[in-house]
Amino acid sequence: MSRFEHHIFVCENVRPPDSPRGCCSAKGSPQVRDRFKEEIEKRGLKGLVRANMAGCLDQCANGVTVVVYPEQIWYGKVTVADVPEILDALAAGRIVERLRIPDERLTGKAKGSQRGVA
Amino acid sequence: MSRFEHHIFVCENVRPPDSPRGCCSAKGSPQVRDRFKEEIEKRGLKGLVRANMAGCLDQCANGVTVVVYPEQIWYGKVTVADVPEILDALAAGRIVERLRIPDERLTGKAKGSQRGVA
Repeated sequence: MSRFEHHIFVCENVRPPDSPRGCCSAKGSPQVRDRFKEEIEKRGLKGLVRANMAGCLDQCANGVTVVVYPEQIWYGKVTVADVPEILDALAAGRIVERLRIPDERLTGKAKGSQRGVA
Repeated sequence: MSRFEHHIFVCENVRPPDSPRGCCSAKGSPQVRDRFKEEIEKRGLKGLVRANMAGCLDQCANGVTVVVYPEQIWYGKVTVADVPEILDALAAGRIVERLRIPDERLTGKAKGSQRGVA
């Protein structure tokens, strides 16, 4: 029950230009997703790694926001130029630390991924 | 590095009405997502569980498609009526088997989630 090895979600939320929170789309997220798709294809990873658009990931201050599952790696301020390095790191089981959003800056209440919600 | 406990992605891809593959949106995925959001709010799970729209999850034949991370649970043919049961199961660490898309029907090449792509 996996599919895919790595599933990359790129926030492509759009907010009005005058929104104080800003939005990932205005910061170039569609281009980031396109670059992921291009690089995945080039590396022969189609079907193994998938880049998807996502609605608001609720980390607006850190946009362009990308989350990689099942690893639960959150990346912020991602640019087109960062894409190859992110894929290199995934292949090597590493994290690109300079792009990682620290836990304390992530919105959401979860402290650990293994806790239940019951 | 978690956020959220459970991150639910609902495919909201739109294809032309005459597309042979069909699409999740035409099958009611925006309503499914709305129902998730409503139920998450009602259960006091906001910030712990998040429902997001997603672009095409590439499981069109199984739409409405939903994937839950980090658990990597793929659900197909999800309706608005199924939402409470899916959240109940997540809270209990269970899977709603009747909705689960069997591995052999999932597109994508990955056989196990722990394999690297290097």
